Amino acid sequence: MTDVGVAGAGMTAFESESDAGALELAERAAWRALDDAGDVAPGDVTSVHVGNMAAEAFDERTGLENALCGALGVDGATADRIENTSASGASAVLRAVDAVRAGRSSVALVVGVETMSAVDTDDATELISRLVHDREYEQGLTLPSFAGLAADRYLETTGADEDALAAVAVKNHRNGAANPYAQFQREITAEEARSSPAVADPLRLYDCCPTSDGAAAIVLRAGGDDDVELAGVAGATGTHAVAERPDPLAIESVSRAGDRAFADTGLEREAVDVACIHDAFTVLELLELEELGFYDGGRAWEATLEGGTALDGDLPVNPGGGLKARGHPLGATGVAQLVELTWQLRGDADARQVAGPETGLALNVGGFGNNAICTLLEAR
Amino acid sequence: MTDVGVAGAGMTAFESESDAGALELAERAAWRALDDAGDVAPGDVTSVHVGNMAAEAFDERTGLENALCGALGVDGATADRIENTSASGASAVLRAVDAVRAGRSSVALVVGVETMSAVDTDDATELISRLVHDREYEQGLTLPSFAGLAADRYLETTGADEDALAAVAVKNHRNGAANPYAQFQREITAEEARSSPAVADPLRLYDCCPTSDGAAAIVLRAGGDDDVELAGVAGATGTHAVAERPDPLAIESVSRAGDRAFADTGLEREAVDVACIHDAFTVLELLELEELGFYDGGRAWEATLEGGTALDGDLPVNPGGGLKARGHPLGATGVAQLVELTWQLRGDADARQVAGPETGLALNVGGFGNNAICTLLEAR
Repeated sequence: MTDVGVAGAGMTAFESESDAGALELAERAAWRALDDAGDVAPGDVTSVHVGNMAAEAFDERTGLENALCGALGVDGATADRIENTSASGASAVLRAVDAVRAGRSSVALVVGVETMSAVDTDDATELISRLVHDREYEQGLTLPSFAGLAADRYLETTGADEDALAAVAVKNHRNGAANPYAQFQREITAEEARSSPAVADPLRLYDCCPTSDGAAAIVLRAGGDDDVELAGVAGATGTHAVAERPDPLAIESVSRAGDRAFADTGLEREAVDVACIHDAFTVLELLELEELGFYDGGRAWEATLEGGTALDGDLPVNPGGGLKARGHPLGATGVAQLVELTWQLRGDADARQVAGPETGLALNVGGFGNNAICTLLEAR
Repeated sequence: MTDVGVAGAGMTAFESESDAGALELAERAAWRALDDAGDVAPGDVTSVHVGNMAAEAFDERTGLENALCGALGVDGATADRIENTSASGASAVLRAVDAVRAGRSSVALVVGVETMSAVDTDDATELISRLVHDREYEQGLTLPSFAGLAADRYLETTGADEDALAAVAVKNHRNGAANPYAQFQREITAEEARSSPAVADPLRLYDCCPTSDGAAAIVLRAGGDDDVELAGVAGATGTHAVAERPDPLAIESVSRAGDRAFADTGLEREAVDVACIHDAFTVLELLELEELGFYDGGRAWEATLEGGTALDGDLPVNPGGGLKARGHPLGATGVAQLVELTWQLRGDADARQVAGPETGLALNVGGFGNNAICTLLEAR
């Protein structure tokens, strides 16, 4: 199997409202990744994989992949756009890895982008809500309401209280405050989190990721010459209707994607030194860490309260601030996780640097566990 | 390199206005392809690749790929949606082939779908027009106007007249009339074509594909046991801005994709017995046949007038009626081309059957030559 190296990584700052549209942000991030790769010019790129959920709706733009190729001067590459709701970015990475492993592409450019500020919050919420199962949509269920129900049950069955949820938010805001690319760069206290406005009981405003504008890009390359290797990536669907899950706290797509990614790479869970987890809601960081096998079921909250997932903990989680504080431009998130991990593995993460990590894991989730993608990176 | 077989193929009839939405049509086509594959159950599918341009805009549905997995009972596969404007279907096939060749998937389900009747024609035209370059969009250029300009120049430089364009429409309507899946099943005369309302001079109504609803699906499988082999597929971008092309009649994405597909398979052009070509406008069938190397530049019209591209000609083109008569539900078209070729190579095409074809070629184009995908199928 062809080795896949991360030749370059770059992103724009994530913001509540950017000065630019999806094409311009995608182009900025792509140039940063290409410049970071050093000796890779647009003409060297053999495939372009754009992760984006809804440029048609958010940005009145169709054919973003071809417009991006034109803007960059990439000419003749294979190009398309990959959509997998909020996991569109990681799905684009997965397709890029396939292209390299299948022998189709020697230099693959992956760009994730979303500009959610282009429509008002009601329209964005409606658009995103249409990813839930028709029967659940008709009942008025949205992603925040699913997360609220899960959080309620998590607290009830594990013995955790709202301090456990707040601890996730406090940690991720602390990390974001050290990340110049983060949308929120302000530390918060547990008291602020606990007293923020209710969204979906017991979840409050600080338990929820914001809507964001931003783009992130990586250049993948066949062969073994780069400092960071994309060791493996795997995806898996779960049930579409949340109500069909035997255990309402189980997110089977996550455990399946994780199991496959570890099998694909031959790595053990103990090898992971830093993780980027899809914390669209604080409770999801806990549930996903458990599904991935880092903690026993119902126990990730204790590790979080004890600092085990802090920058200097046993398993630093979301060093860049996560979706919670770095922000969550839907299609960009999965790629931004890999940009952060690349910087961490190279030792380039400045004030938020984890001590000497050699292996990083990213988990990007589409919908409320409809589809998950798990990626493992290794320092060479 | 892993061999890729076409285990099953199926589609819905293409219609001006279907009784169902994108999810339902996708599900119908998928079931037909799975049933056709015989021994493949939804639980055997390891990857799902949905080709679709704009379900968010046309159908108010996000996360179509996950909804489809839920509806079919595919659980645990890798799944995503591929968008490449009007070549979304063939791009999804390309990614499925990558997944099989990369060792990720043993049974790949590809479903192309679009429901364009869900919005009015003005909104559909506006949505599609946003794929052209910003500068060209601001000048009011649309796909029909590009096609009209190209047709005008083609007639001027080749010595062809409007009868040559009408001959494409007459042939494709004749083929569509023999295809129960075609949107238009009525033969037309050259005189009807020539006297139909003007759209973009010299192109008339019968020179243009309709807007359509429909879905098509194929099941791809690793190994050499199926009657039809997906011998190879290749994609290439051209320039985004049409004005940047040195020759306004050259569609470089098409010649590049064709050259790569032939190189990928080792097949010669002479081996091709039947072709499905992206005739969104009649002039495109002529230009693309020339770009693919089947005819010298500026000469495909003579072969068409002489019957060379008819069902009993040297190179039968668009036996199912093409985009012109079968219809053009954007994301479905590239998959429907492969369904038609599979039926032709198996000898299952009834009244429109080409005599004993062993090799088929499909060409699906995104935008006005922004991106092209060429696929070759062989009977085993």
